[in-house]
Amino acid sequence: MIKVILHNNDQKAIIDAPVEQLPEIVAREHTMLWVDLTDPTPDEVAAIGQVFSFHPLALEDTMADDIRPKIDQYEGYAFIAFYGMTHSREGCRAHSVDIFIGTNYMVTFHDSELPVIDETATRWKQNVAALGNRGPGFLLYSLLDALVEGYFPVIDEITERAEELEESVLNGGAPLLQGNIMQLRRELLMIRRVAGPERDVMNVLVRRDPPYFGKKEVAYFQDVYDHLLRVIDSVDLTRDMLAGVLDANLSMVSYNLNVVVKRLTSSSIILMSITLVAGIYGMNFVHMPELDWQFGYLFALGLMALIGVTEFLVFKRIDWL
Amino acid sequence: MIKVILHNNDQKAIIDAPVEQLPEIVAREHTMLWVDLTDPTPDEVAAIGQVFSFHPLALEDTMADDIRPKIDQYEGYAFIAFYGMTHSREGCRAHSVDIFIGTNYMVTFHDSELPVIDETATRWKQNVAALGNRGPGFLLYSLLDALVEGYFPVIDEITERAEELEESVLNGGAPLLQGNIMQLRRELLMIRRVAGPERDVMNVLVRRDPPYFGKKEVAYFQDVYDHLLRVIDSVDLTRDMLAGVLDANLSMVSYNLNVVVKRLTSSSIILMSITLVAGIYGMNFVHMPELDWQFGYLFALGLMALIGVTEFLVFKRIDWL
Amino acid sequence: MIKVILHNNDQKAIIDAPVEQLPEIVAREHTMLWVDLTDPTPDEVAAIGQVFSFHPLALEDTMADDIRPKIDQYEGYAFIAFYGMTHSREGCRAHSVDIFIGTNYMVTFHDSELPVIDETATRWKQNVAALGNRGPGFLLYSLLDALVEGYFPVIDEITERAEELEESVLNGGAPLLQGNIMQLRRELLMIRRVAGPERDVMNVLVRRDPPYFGKKEVAYFQDVYDHLLRVIDSVDLTRDMLAGVLDANLSMVSYNLNVVVKRLTSSSIILMSITLVAGIYGMNFVHMPELDWQFGYLFALGLMALIGVTEFLVFKRIDWL
Amino acid sequence: MIKVILHNNDQKAIIDAPVEQLPEIVAREHTMLWVDLTDPTPDEVAAIGQVFSFHPLALEDTMADDIRPKIDQYEGYAFIAFYGMTHSREGCRAHSVDIFIGTNYMVTFHDSELPVIDETATRWKQNVAALGNRGPGFLLYSLLDALVEGYFPVIDEITERAEELEESVLNGGAPLLQGNIMQLRRELLMIRRVAGPERDVMNVLVRRDPPYFGKKEVAYFQDVYDHLLRVIDSVDLTRDMLAGVLDANLSMVSYNLNVVVKRLTSSSIILMSITLVAGIYGMNFVHMPELDWQFGYLFALGLMALIGVTEFLVFKRIDWL
Amino acid sequence: MIKVILHNNDQKAIIDAPVEQLPEIVAREHTMLWVDLTDPTPDEVAAIGQVFSFHPLALEDTMADDIRPKIDQYEGYAFIAFYGMTHSREGCRAHSVDIFIGTNYMVTFHDSELPVIDETATRWKQNVAALGNRGPGFLLYSLLDALVEGYFPVIDEITERAEELEESVLNGGAPLLQGNIMQLRRELLMIRRVAGPERDVMNVLVRRDPPYFGKKEVAYFQDVYDHLLRVIDSVDLTRDMLAGVLDANLSMVSYNLNVVVKRLTSSSIILMSITLVAGIYGMNFVHMPELDWQFGYLFALGLMALIGVTEFLVFKRIDWL
Repeated sequence: MIKVILHNNDQKAIIDAPVEQLPEIVAREHTMLWVDLTDPTPDEVAAIGQVFSFHPLALEDTMADDIRPKIDQYEGYAFIAFYGMTHSREGCRAHSVDIFIGTNYMVTFHDSELPVIDETATRWKQNVAALGNRGPGFLLYSLLDALVEGYFPVIDEITERAEELEESVLNGGAPLLQGNIMQLRRELLMIRRVAGPERDVMNVLVRRDPPYFGKKEVAYFQDVYDHLLRVIDSVDLTRDMLAGVLDANLSMVSYNLNVVVKRLTSSSIILMSITLVAGIYGMNFVHMPELDWQFGYLFALGLMALIGVTEFLVFKRIDWL
Repeated sequence: MIKVILHNNDQKAIIDAPVEQLPEIVAREHTMLWVDLTDPTPDEVAAIGQVFSFHPLALEDTMADDIRPKIDQYEGYAFIAFYGMTHSREGCRAHSVDIFIGTNYMVTFHDSELPVIDETATRWKQNVAALGNRGPGFLLYSLLDALVEGYFPVIDEITERAEELEESVLNGGAPLLQGNIMQLRRELLMIRRVAGPERDVMNVLVRRDPPYFGKKEVAYFQDVYDHLLRVIDSVDLTRDMLAGVLDANLSMVSYNLNVVVKRLTSSSIILMSITLVAGIYGMNFVHMPELDWQFGYLFALGLMALIGVTEFLVFKRIDWL
Repeated sequence: MIKVILHNNDQKAIIDAPVEQLPEIVAREHTMLWVDLTDPTPDEVAAIGQVFSFHPLALEDTMADDIRPKIDQYEGYAFIAFYGMTHSREGCRAHSVDIFIGTNYMVTFHDSELPVIDETATRWKQNVAALGNRGPGFLLYSLLDALVEGYFPVIDEITERAEELEESVLNGGAPLLQGNIMQLRRELLMIRRVAGPERDVMNVLVRRDPPYFGKKEVAYFQDVYDHLLRVIDSVDLTRDMLAGVLDANLSMVSYNLNVVVKRLTSSSIILMSITLVAGIYGMNFVHMPELDWQFGYLFALGLMALIGVTEFLVFKRIDWL
Repeated sequence: MIKVILHNNDQKAIIDAPVEQLPEIVAREHTMLWVDLTDPTPDEVAAIGQVFSFHPLALEDTMADDIRPKIDQYEGYAFIAFYGMTHSREGCRAHSVDIFIGTNYMVTFHDSELPVIDETATRWKQNVAALGNRGPGFLLYSLLDALVEGYFPVIDEITERAEELEESVLNGGAPLLQGNIMQLRRELLMIRRVAGPERDVMNVLVRRDPPYFGKKEVAYFQDVYDHLLRVIDSVDLTRDMLAGVLDANLSMVSYNLNVVVKRLTSSSIILMSITLVAGIYGMNFVHMPELDWQFGYLFALGLMALIGVTEFLVFKRIDWL
Repeated sequence: MIKVILHNNDQKAIIDAPVEQLPEIVAREHTMLWVDLTDPTPDEVAAIGQVFSFHPLALEDTMADDIRPKIDQYEGYAFIAFYGMTHSREGCRAHSVDIFIGTNYMVTFHDSELPVIDETATRWKQNVAALGNRGPGFLLYSLLDALVEGYFPVIDEITERAEELEESVLNGGAPLLQGNIMQLRRELLMIRRVAGPERDVMNVLVRRDPPYFGKKEVAYFQDVYDHLLRVIDSVDLTRDMLAGVLDANLSMVSYNLNVVVKRLTSSSIILMSITLVAGIYGMNFVHMPELDWQFGYLFALGLMALIGVTEFLVFKRIDWL
């Protein structure tokens, strides 16, 4: 699906335009244009590529489904590969957003419907109404900022789940959380691997200001850069926390083993001692005075109880039972 | 709450000024001004922002509650995000302090009452009395120095608690300290994540001397930089120590398991051996000479005691009991 | 085996040429030449080396079987050591491909038949037909791109095997997978050690454009560079996953030990308790009323059953059995 | 305590001078002066600071007891914070040595008596007699070299203790060495944290030759730099060794547990089997032919012995006992 | 022992010269000279140092027995500290080779007889005969190349031993290999610590070509540099492998413990169950019908066998025995 949003300096408003007029619109001056393609077919990509004469390698990248965030500068425009992030019950997912940014246009490709795209369009319309046209740099900033802002709820969600794991470990040790930890680690790694190269992209935008951005945009790109640093910090923090959970769990399991073995030892000793008394009075010696006592049997039972209770108390005392 | 402290070169003293006069004071020359906002409302932030015409992104950062320490240079002023640190029984906390520094003013925003702010104001008053006006660089140094100095007692507190943990591990192994270690690690990480970017901020102040600082301030900023390096060193040292405590604890738990299992083995063997004797004399063979001996029973009990004591001594010797 | 492929600007087509004419062909202008040597003999290497007057150190490298990917620039040509990757049931293998690239020729040496070489030749022929001669840079790109593209299926295969291991660990713990993990780690390391230096090679090609490549090729080399970054990312991801599998396995084994020891403890206690009853009624006291009861025997058996079942239920409840 | 050593070019000898003459001596030309303060009082520091007009921040650092090695360059002199190292039975200690170096003087502050200071003074006297005055650079080199040379015996001592630990682990596993390892690690870390920044100090001295050092001194400072690199190498090596000892110890403890559990299993099986025989012949069946045999009892004992010995041999064979 | 090898341009051959003529030879022009000192006495070092007027610090380094590989540039010559490597049954050893290289001479110091020195001399003689004089750079390359080539068999030997350890771990777990692993790790570390700084030395030779080397030598030094990179790669690979062996071993030991404990549990349950039967029929109840059965005894034995075999089969099935 192709959507064309057009800002004409004369009209001082942003309007939607039909796709068919695109070649003609591109030729006009004093226009700021945003072409957004959702889940485009190869034909649509090729058509758009021809209208703006994009480099075939960049177009190939928009079709690939697993590329690294990057910025490639071509003559007259730049290609930026970025990611949006969503999370659901099945975990978090990264959605590739490929951006071409020129002096008077921005073209975006993405596979799935992303709410941030619509939000950005809405905010752009409002901003233009309020502030007048501010060039492609400001539009690019709005989009990148919206994408990066979307990482924080995802990380918060992951951190929350990590904290639940931590709680459950400290409350008793649950060795089967291994699968959960691995899942969280994988999601954190995924974010880390997206945010790291994206930071480099923002660094390029901050340091080398291409001709189609003014000086003013640098502060804005710096802002996105700072947010990405914070994303990376948070991810590292949570990863560190997960490592701590793993350590704690291992300690817990070892501790539990100690507890169980102590109980095994204690109860073995108690039962064996009592059994020994029974064994002794089961011997067949001719001369065993206790056997003939009137209350010999009660004496034996009492002796067993005495031994059992004493040992039980001793083991209780040294915390083995 | 907004507090305005004013140093007028003519008066050679520092006076408090009412907030209402602020726009007029800012316009005056030959003045050094400190505006301090404690837990400001959005309206107060906006008002102050307008008086000094600060960049909206920087003002946004002063309202955000979790930003990375950084320095952003704008035309005519710089924005510095820094942190103060306090510790209480519940652990240590970082308090964001946002600073705008211009040629003749410093504006500070912070959410909570921080003693170091008042201390800095007091010291500034004394210094100005003693040394005359020394420009915004010296005021900024006083504040940053006071903030960073405040990290050391926090780290000392954490190190002390880590040493207690270490002691308690070496005195017997306490696997349940896992929760404590994780808490300390998290606090250290928090300090590390604040001090690292702050070091970069100081580095910028030392290397690139902005127009509103003189050459003389560099030595002072270098001093704060050195203190931050020491903060980071201490944090790393304590983290390393905690890792050692974890290792030691794991070793201790394993060692204890060995001890318990040895005791289990020893006592099982002793009790089973004695029981065996009772079992033998419980057999019903017609021809068992011992059974008819006068002191057969005593002989059996003696045999049991002999076996038990011998084994006990053997296991004692090889340190299994 | 030596194969000579020749593109003559006049003929506008690519033809195979006999080896004997090589010295004469090299002398011609307006020609683009690819000489490919499969498993060459030292004599063949020496002969080709003489025709193009390659440096003896570079020729030595083509004969060595285990060199690091690198680019060495000589006067008039560059020597590039690269690797192709194949995988089979026995694991994955790296195949050295040594490339000399000059202004109008490319010479390649490799020990084994590599499908990508033939594919590159075929694609070159098609491209020349379609696009005209594009110089040695484009030919080099085609070859390097084909080699690097070949890494992805190998990594996918390894990742798949790692995921199977992960599954099998989470489904019960299989400590003997150690050998498999070590094998996968070794293969990943091997790819990592090839891809890392290759990235540096591509970086050289992107940054310093030697005289025999035009500006246009840079975007293409950048593309290969990006793919290598992705290779390295994937390898690191899978290595991290394997580390997680190891951790999970260790946890699993510890957990299983706990389970087994709990069962040992439970069943010991149950059997010993029952045996104790039998021991008690095996005592030889003269006065033991139960012994004379009509249903004393059944009472004893019932008592045993009662104790056994009760304990069994208790242990079942606390999840020890 | 303040000691003043003076080299007057005219006298061609080094003489001790009374502290009172210091201000007058400093004013003289053609003099090389070393002022050494052992455990100075704040008043002494202030007095010396005034004579040479040192920067207040640097003087503050000389009073602080835990600063990072560094070099601060002021106008006309440099401040160097360095450390000497001593070791005794209680472990190794670092002693701060603060140095001011100017064109014709060196001032040193240290808290404790350090033998290396006296040695350096003695050597300086000898050298001046032999070689003539060689400027402050050579004197500084003599001191730094002596300080750094003093690290090697400390490291050797630590390495020796680490090797003893290693030996004792490989000879049987001693889980309680945890405390020793932590102590050694802490000492190594302490040296590492001193030597690292000192290397940076030496690097500054080698790269940027301040006006008061000649070209000739660079080779000497490079020598100290190389020694510090070697110190760091040694520390890392020993740390790595300690990590190995920890791993080895953990393995040892696990191995020992296996051995103990095998013994437990073996002896349980043997004793239980023998007891079973006794149990069988303790049954009260009316018809049990063995009971009436003449040598039934001996037969039973023999059977027990046979079973016990056989099992013992089997377990010995599979190395479980 | 001092050996002097001399190449005189007029004679076009290399001849041995007596040590006494050295001062005279050094003065001659058009000569290429190699002075090789095996295990030199301090007097010999001093004498040679005087002939070539070497810096005292460099001469000191040649006497020290444990210096880091490095290159120090002095006026008119460079000092290079390098290492040769040998391996024997007791492990591998590094042998210091100290080299002074000037415009027309090379002086080498080494403590032990090193075969590579003689090989280099022989090769030099042959090369000079074949190629004519090629200056000190080529001679230096020949020596460094020979030294570095000597590292590969040492690493191969270590890798082989590591692979044997791996094999033995995967075939059953051998916790006592700890000592072997530590030995191999120490040797690898030793090579790593030599090869790392040597790579930096080669880098200096490749980047900054001192006046006494021509452009042509750079390719050769680059070759040695590449070999050192490969050495470092191999060492890292083998270290990684050893870490894997350690992990595998730990897993193996844990797994074995599980197996042993399962066997303990199984055999305890079997023996206790059987003993229980004997205990039951050892009870002294007056009314126990089985006791009076004709084949009661056989019935009891059969019951025991039945229980034992059944349990045995069950445990076999769930793989506990």
